[in-house]
Amino acid sequence: MTRESRVVLNSNGIDVQESAAVYVIGADIGGTNLRLALADGAGAILGRWTASTSCARDAQAVVRLMREGVDTLLREASLPHDALGAIACGVPGITNVDSGIVIATSYLMGWRDVPLRNLLEAEFKAPAAVDNDVNLAAIGEQRAGVAQSEDNFVFLAIGTGIGAGIVLNGQVHHGGVWTAGEIGYMLVPGTSEAPIERGEPGALERIAGGEGIRNQWQKRWQDDLTTLSKDATATEIFDHAQESNALAQEVLQVAGRTLAYAIYNISLILNSPLFVLGGSVGIHPALGDAVRLVLKQRRARVQPNVARSALGADAQLVGAIYLAIETANKKLALSGS
Amino acid sequence: MTRESRVVLNSNGIDVQESAAVYVIGADIGGTNLRLALADGAGAILGRWTASTSCARDAQAVVRLMREGVDTLLREASLPHDALGAIACGVPGITNVDSGIVIATSYLMGWRDVPLRNLLEAEFKAPAAVDNDVNLAAIGEQRAGVAQSEDNFVFLAIGTGIGAGIVLNGQVHHGGVWTAGEIGYMLVPGTSEAPIERGEPGALERIAGGEGIRNQWQKRWQDDLTTLSKDATATEIFDHAQESNALAQEVLQVAGRTLAYAIYNISLILNSPLFVLGGSVGIHPALGDAVRLVLKQRRARVQPNVARSALGADAQLVGAIYLAIETANKKLALSGS
Repeated sequence: MTRESRVVLNSNGIDVQESAAVYVIGADIGGTNLRLALADGAGAILGRWTASTSCARDAQAVVRLMREGVDTLLREASLPHDALGAIACGVPGITNVDSGIVIATSYLMGWRDVPLRNLLEAEFKAPAAVDNDVNLAAIGEQRAGVAQSEDNFVFLAIGTGIGAGIVLNGQVHHGGVWTAGEIGYMLVPGTSEAPIERGEPGALERIAGGEGIRNQWQKRWQDDLTTLSKDATATEIFDHAQESNALAQEVLQVAGRTLAYAIYNISLILNSPLFVLGGSVGIHPALGDAVRLVLKQRRARVQPNVARSALGADAQLVGAIYLAIETANKKLALSGS
Repeated sequence: MTRESRVVLNSNGIDVQESAAVYVIGADIGGTNLRLALADGAGAILGRWTASTSCARDAQAVVRLMREGVDTLLREASLPHDALGAIACGVPGITNVDSGIVIATSYLMGWRDVPLRNLLEAEFKAPAAVDNDVNLAAIGEQRAGVAQSEDNFVFLAIGTGIGAGIVLNGQVHHGGVWTAGEIGYMLVPGTSEAPIERGEPGALERIAGGEGIRNQWQKRWQDDLTTLSKDATATEIFDHAQESNALAQEVLQVAGRTLAYAIYNISLILNSPLFVLGGSVGIHPALGDAVRLVLKQRRARVQPNVARSALGADAQLVGAIYLAIETANKKLALSGS
């Protein structure tokens, strides 16, 4: 497939057929891993590359790591460096997509006002784009996942924390200062009302995020009530709930109810017809079931559809690929060649 | 001013100067009153007319009442019937602005699937438009009120109940099935979690809406703690709080905190820089102060500006006028004359 598409590499225009001649890199910078994918202009993934970021967390080090990965991917695909049409990158933090500056990430990375797009363009001599990773996951689901027919939906990333990617009229809604979707701090019945410092886990994620679920479990854990370890992960706890353990079911129900209230509130505000549950914790089927049950019981006028991410752990990487394709196409359109 | 604008009545184009030649009616249908305003194409109000809707709540009766008001206003301004460029109408309910159908109003009016735009166009032989009254209030503040420089803001109407008009990228966000902004049902710490039937007051408005505030007062009221009647209105209770009555201050603080939590949640989701407090209860300065204090204490990354409606009780009527002007201009542009 990739060999065929290369024959139209130098043609004019930007329609899907012709844009298939572009090769792009989608990247996902996480707190523990950097993941890259080489894709063609239709979004088909030709190669993947992953590295730990545990020893390379400042921006310069991450870009150097990306250089290594990009070189490897191009070499493995027998592509020259100038075949790279664009690179796009998801970042776990608040990102100004106009300026390409990462305003702030969580304490793990500690980035502040990092001009990531400029760094990438200087390094790769190709147009670059950056966005928040949850926003990219929403784009991924919209282009190649469970939200392909939806111009209005909300992607909920539930991993260690909780964030939302909000798509309105086909476009990601970023907000005035790029913080739209930072719903980990949302207040619903059952969450703490205590003010929370920036960078600290928010009220909602303290109950319904991965770490919050573990905390709920540890608070309730008793030797004689479960065979599961006190140190279990959220996913293990949900598996345990599916095996009918009452303690795990209680923790699942608290998380499901809290998350359902958040979805209910967003649905009231935006009237989004679809909520996609993603992230390592969010894709667990037991959580989706618990959320749907609570939403149904609320008997709201509008009952949003709650679906499971189709792309799973790949959502943000796939979103980055599509953002890179758009970025390459824009560049082609501007240069008129 | 109006006489001057009439000389360009028959010219081509739709720029602001020329559109000043159009006369329009803005209307606001409420549970107790129908209010009309005649305005010129620049939005200047030339005359007002009000009637009780207590005896005329079905749609046909309301349109007949509007006929009476429009005739009166045109006559008083010495304008012929064909001077009416358009009519736009705010309705206290869920409204499909594309089809012009009022899907549902509260129990007071009891409308279901009323084709109001068609009824108005048939009656007045002029283009008509309809929208939810809170959305029109947001438009009013955007065109002629406190949100004139804002493309992104939220208007909160706090009267008997609570609703929001959400402006994103300069446009009212209506949502997939026209229910966006129905935040009276929002769940925040302190609200009841019990499911609520359609048409019944929502969890948020049961505490922070006008009726909710009265209920909070009545629950706490004791003869020896206040000189104010147990039957006091929300506004009277807030006045009493400003006079340092502890009981009234407690009710004010509960309402302010609950409303601040709702604003905080919306701000997290949308990152709107401005929230405008409107409605008969929302414009009380004591409520705005209570809300701002709670928001400040939360130490959020993004602190939205909370402003008081500049148009007050006129917000939705002014919004209707501007919607009517747009409707007239669109008609002119389409007819090319």
